[in-house]
This record gives sequence, structure tokens and C-alpha cells, in this order.
Amino acid sequence: MIYLDNAATTYPKPEEVYLALDKANREYGFNSGRGSYKKAKEVANIIDETRNELSSLVECTANTVIFSTSSTEALNMIIFGLDWAKGDNVYVSPFEHNSVLRPLYEIKKRHDINIIQIPFNKETWNIDSNFEDLLILNKPKCIFCSSKSNTTGYNLPINEIFKLGKKYNSINILDASQSFGVDKTISKNNSDFIIFAGHKSLYASFGIAGFININNIELKPFLFGGTGSDSLNLEMPLNGASHLEAGSKNIIAIYGLHESLKWLKNHNIEEKERTLFKYLYQSISSIKKVITYLPSNIDKCCGILSFNVDGYTAEEVGDILNQEFDICVRTGYHCCPYIHDFINSKKFNGTVRVSMNYFNTEKDIDCLINALNTL
Amino acid sequence: MIYLDNAATTYPKPEEVYLALDKANREYGFNSGRGSYKKAKEVANIIDETRNELSSLVECTANTVIFSTSSTEALNMIIFGLDWAKGDNVYVSPFEHNSVLRPLYEIKKRHDINIIQIPFNKETWNIDSNFEDLLILNKPKCIFCSSKSNTTGYNLPINEIFKLGKKYNSINILDASQSFGVDKTISKNNSDFIIFAGHKSLYASFGIAGFININNIELKPFLFGGTGSDSLNLEMPLNGASHLEAGSKNIIAIYGLHESLKWLKNHNIEEKERTLFKYLYQSISSIKKVITYLPSNIDKCCGILSFNVDGYTAEEVGDILNQEFDICVRTGYHCCPYIHDFINSKKFNGTVRVSMNYFNTEKDIDCLINALNTL
Repeated sequence: MIYLDNAATTYPKPEEVYLALDKANREYGFNSGRGSYKKAKEVANIIDETRNELSSLVECTANTVIFSTSSTEALNMIIFGLDWAKGDNVYVSPFEHNSVLRPLYEIKKRHDINIIQIPFNKETWNIDSNFEDLLILNKPKCIFCSSKSNTTGYNLPINEIFKLGKKYNSINILDASQSFGVDKTISKNNSDFIIFAGHKSLYASFGIAGFININNIELKPFLFGGTGSDSLNLEMPLNGASHLEAGSKNIIAIYGLHESLKWLKNHNIEEKERTLFKYLYQSISSIKKVITYLPSNIDKCCGILSFNVDGYTAEEVGDILNQEFDICVRTGYHCCPYIHDFINSKKFNGTVRVSMNYFNTEKDIDCLINALNTL
Repeated sequence: MIYLDNAATTYPKPEEVYLALDKANREYGFNSGRGSYKKAKEVANIIDETRNELSSLVECTANTVIFSTSSTEALNMIIFGLDWAKGDNVYVSPFEHNSVLRPLYEIKKRHDINIIQIPFNKETWNIDSNFEDLLILNKPKCIFCSSKSNTTGYNLPINEIFKLGKKYNSINILDASQSFGVDKTISKNNSDFIIFAGHKSLYASFGIAGFININNIELKPFLFGGTGSDSLNLEMPLNGASHLEAGSKNIIAIYGLHESLKWLKNHNIEEKERTLFKYLYQSISSIKKVITYLPSNIDKCCGILSFNVDGYTAEEVGDILNQEFDICVRTGYHCCPYIHDFINSKKFNGTVRVSMNYFNTEKDIDCLINALNTL
């Protein structure tokens, strides 16, 4: 099997992470903060250390980290945690995922907010010059933007977008699910929230994700429940992570992340992904029937490439790759409702998406290319 | 270390579960329903089988099972998913956890509902005869009740409560976090929702929980995000589990549960817990300074026992057990704000809670008793 669906979840994980997860199940499977014995304290320390390591990646402090069980939940915590008023303007890039758009559309239904797409040039994929005019005309409450498109591998011009947003007092939310820990340019500059997903670019397991609340913006709780503290209070505790984090913490997944963060420090994932991406691009461009979805400067993309094959729907290509060549790619709309108008891929029912990780090789790409050459 | 905090999370898990979790990390770490390749389908099948096994425990069908990442999230999904109107009456037992009470209090703040405690006799812990009068006077919208109290190990008279509730058209929600899979008397009769927690009585890991929606009562989505389906739709899909389940599924934890359900079939956990409980009760009753919190008929309790020691706060006892004897118990209020007035334990700042699982032994109890005898 050749696995090229790493944008859905990275696989395999480093051996160090598998060993850590087994160790955690056997030695740390306790409920942190729900008791005062040694092991409960030990796992509480692991949780604190993990918050510290995550936040230090963007030069923040541990108390800015809020854990969730998925980046979807993290985005729900932020979106339903903010205060909304009728007519609020929310800007989103055309590359956003349904984990951003579906909660925002629910807010639109409840509070009559405006959801506005940031205009991007269809050739260069740069932001259009009229974006600032839009911001002046419709003052932004928030801007939601991905660091990397899960469909096209495009690294969005976050700094430019968020800097403009800050000029008009926007709350800037960076969905870094696809590249946190890998893309070293992600920083706290001009961002208010950064969302991360353990099981994607952080090479940890399912079950741990969250966000960094850089400027400690107040959020109402989204999840309500036990916090192992202040038990007689029928409301969520007011201070600290407990205000937002209800229920037992998944120490197993957190310990996996604790160890994957160490592994990430010693491996240059991005360089590997860039090399593989260039190799894939050069190889796939030589196939006449293939249509790729890329900006004019392909250096802005990395790790993920979307394409179609003339005469086939995306799903048909995926089925052939799977059934005849045991190659795993993802096909369809990739939970991104806007991007397919932007790249004009609806006539193929979406795209065929190839997404690589540190463990892929040029040989994997060769197999894919050989398979595509049979079409 | 002697672990007696199994009500927080069961530890250890069966060796079969550890092996399954490692196997899942290495072989099934894929994103189900997010691709159409063999492995993605294989994990989708595992998820379906797990739904089937869970629902068959209460003679329901797989399509009634909604997965969440914790029982707290499951309760939030139900409580925020129901329609509420000003003046709705919600009944709760005095044994309920903050995972029920805190979301309900948020609903009270938003919709001005009434939260009413079900009256229990302080001697017998039976429901008071005036409960039905209350139901007639204040027609119930819902009744929330735990199958087993996480503080006292009391198996609540669910059938009696829910049968009365149904007489007055209540929606009955059974929080079976502490005993689903172990207590064979849990059934779909008179319940509308049954909540389960993988990492507790089901002997699986953190990261998987959910509920059974026995009568397919309509719920609004609580979490919004990608579902790997219907991607161009900015609202959650209307039908099936996708209506409520947003984001990547934790296949690792689900496979652990898949295997723990097999293990549970071959082991009589309840019998073991009953035997240990009786042994603990007999031993601890002989210690003069010890005050236990039990109904007149102790056969109504199992697995969990709360006590205090005259002259000590609960925390002081826990600290001594931990530091001097390496015995892990939990002390305090156990996320249950009402029960401490009912059992009158606030003067000790809560209780010392001993909670056992299948892997505890009489020797563990002996060690605890020896330790308590030094106080």
C-alpha cells in the first residue's frame, strides 16, 4: 500500500510515537486533576509540559494553550465562544474547511452575521488589491484563514492578510491544522488564535488538538461539564484552561503529542515535503491528460497537490488508483465548499488529492505516476 | 501502587485492549470516510461493527449510536441538541455529575428552565412517594438520571423513576457512564437516551464515548464541521450519525472499544465488583472512626464506596493513603454538587472515594484497611 492521504491524517507516525502511546496506555492511563495521588500529578505534569512545548513553538506561554479533542472542536470553541452581533463581518479565505464554515454558517443563522470571502487572484493566488477596500467598507470582526490549504497545499499569505486585518482591528484566527509544527514561519505575529491538530502535521494520534489564545481573548465556554475543580459551582470555573476544558483529558493522546513534539524538533519535515512536492510536480506535469491546481508560482505550495485527469471524474481516478495499484489518495471536495469554484474543479466532482508526509519516498511518487500513465 | 480510583477511569485495561490499541495505531490509523481506499473502508467497517456491538447490549440497532469523544461531550450534544422553552421542567437526581448539571444550568440561564431535584429518602435512598405529585404539578420535559452514582456506587432505581417519567411524557436520559457494559439490568425500557463512556466501565481508552438515541429523538447539531460527506453543503447533513458527528473519528480509541466489548462478554465484572464491595464494606465497617455513606440496604451499591474518617478532612485521608501507603483514592466533591448535602459530607470537604474494578483484589482492600487502621 502506498499512502498519499496525509492531509486527512499522517500515517505512519514515527515509531517513537507508537512506543509512547503504548507506554502511556500502560503507565499513564490515569485521570489527571481528578485525584491527588502521585500518578495523577505525574500526568498533570505531562499535560503542562505539552502545553509548554506547543506554545513555545510560537513564543507564547503554556497558559495560552487550550486543549480539545479535535481541531473541529477547537474551532467550535472559538466560534461559539466569541460574542456576536447582527451585522458582524467575518472574512474567510476561499480555501477554508467546513470546520470553519459550518460553525460560522450556524452563527449566521443565529445572529445574522455577514460571511465575506477574501478576494484572491485566480492566477497568482495572491490577495486582490481590493481586499483593503472591502475591509474599509465592511469593518472586520474576525478573519479566518488557514495556514495551508488542505485541498491544494497552498501556503496562504497569512502575514499580509492578518496585518491588513489588524489595521482594522480584526480578531485573526489561523487554522494551522495542516502545518503547525512543520511550517516554521507560523508565528504569533498578528494572530489572535492558532488552531493545531495533533493527528495531522504534529504526527501525534487522534484525540488531541486545540488552540493557542495568544492575546487571552475572552471566550464563553462551549463545552460544559466537570473540571475536577470547584465542583460545587454549577458554572464553569472562571479562570484558566478549566473555563473551557470540560471532561476527562485524553492523557494517552497528549503523551503521544508530548513525544511527537520531540521527534519534530529533530526532523526537517518541511524540507522533505518540499523535495517530494517538486518531484511530484515535475513528474505529474509531464502527463498530458493531467490538470493540476496550482498558483503561477508553485513554490507557494507544498506537501499536498490536487489534480484531475481529463475524461475521468476525481472519484474514478481514485478508484483505479486504489483497486489496481493499491495507492491511497483522497477524492472529492475535501470538506472545502468554496475552493472548487475558485479552481474550477466541480466538473470533475472535486479533485484527486495527493498528500505526502515525511515517510513518503520518490518511489511512492514513481508508482503514482506509472499508474496515472495507464489512464 | 494500589489503584482504587476506577470511577475516574478504569486502570489497568485488559491486556487485550492494550494490544488492540497498539495494533490500531500501527494498522488502522486512517481517517475513516475521508477516502475511498481499502484501509479507509476497513476502518469504517470497524466503526460500524462497534456501533452494532454497543447498541446490541440494549437491543437497539447500530444506527441509534452517536459517537463523541467523552461522555461530557455526549451530554452536551443531547442537552444543547434538544429544543427548550421558558418554564420547561427538568428533573435530576441528587446524584448527578457536573457533566449533566453544568450544561443544564447554562440552559437555565439561556431559556429560564426549572431544574428540580427528584426527592430521595435519606435513609433508604428510595425515591420519595411525593415524586409523582411533583411530576403532576410540574410536568416533566426531561429526567436525567445516572445508572450508578460516581460518588457512592449507588445503583439508582432507574426503572421506577423512568416509568413514572414516561407516564407524564418525559424524555428520559440515562447517564450510564459508570456502568454501561457492566450492569446487565441497563435496558432500553423507558429510556430515550443512554450515555456511555469508553474509558470507564467499558474498559476501553480515553477518546471514545457517546450515546444511544433509542427512539431517534431529533437533536440539533452541537458540533459543526466536516463530515467527509456532502461537502458543498454549508449545513450539517440532515440524516444519519453525520448530522451530529463532526470531525475526524478517533479510530484508535474506537478499535480499543471494539476489542474491550469482546473482553467484557467473557468476564463477569459485576460479580467481581460485588464480591469486592462486600469485602470492603465488611472490613471498613469494623473501623470505628470511619463513616460510610450508604443506603440502609447496601446491596443497592456496588464497585464504589465513599467514606470519611472522624477528625480528618477527606483530602487529609487521601494524602496519607497516597504518601504513606501508595494507595490511590480520590477525595473531594467528585464533580457532584448536590450529593454532599444529601449525604451530609460537606463538613469533611467531600468524601474519600474508593472505586474498584475487575483487576482489584481482596489484598488491595486489606492494604487499604491496614492503612486506615493507623489513623
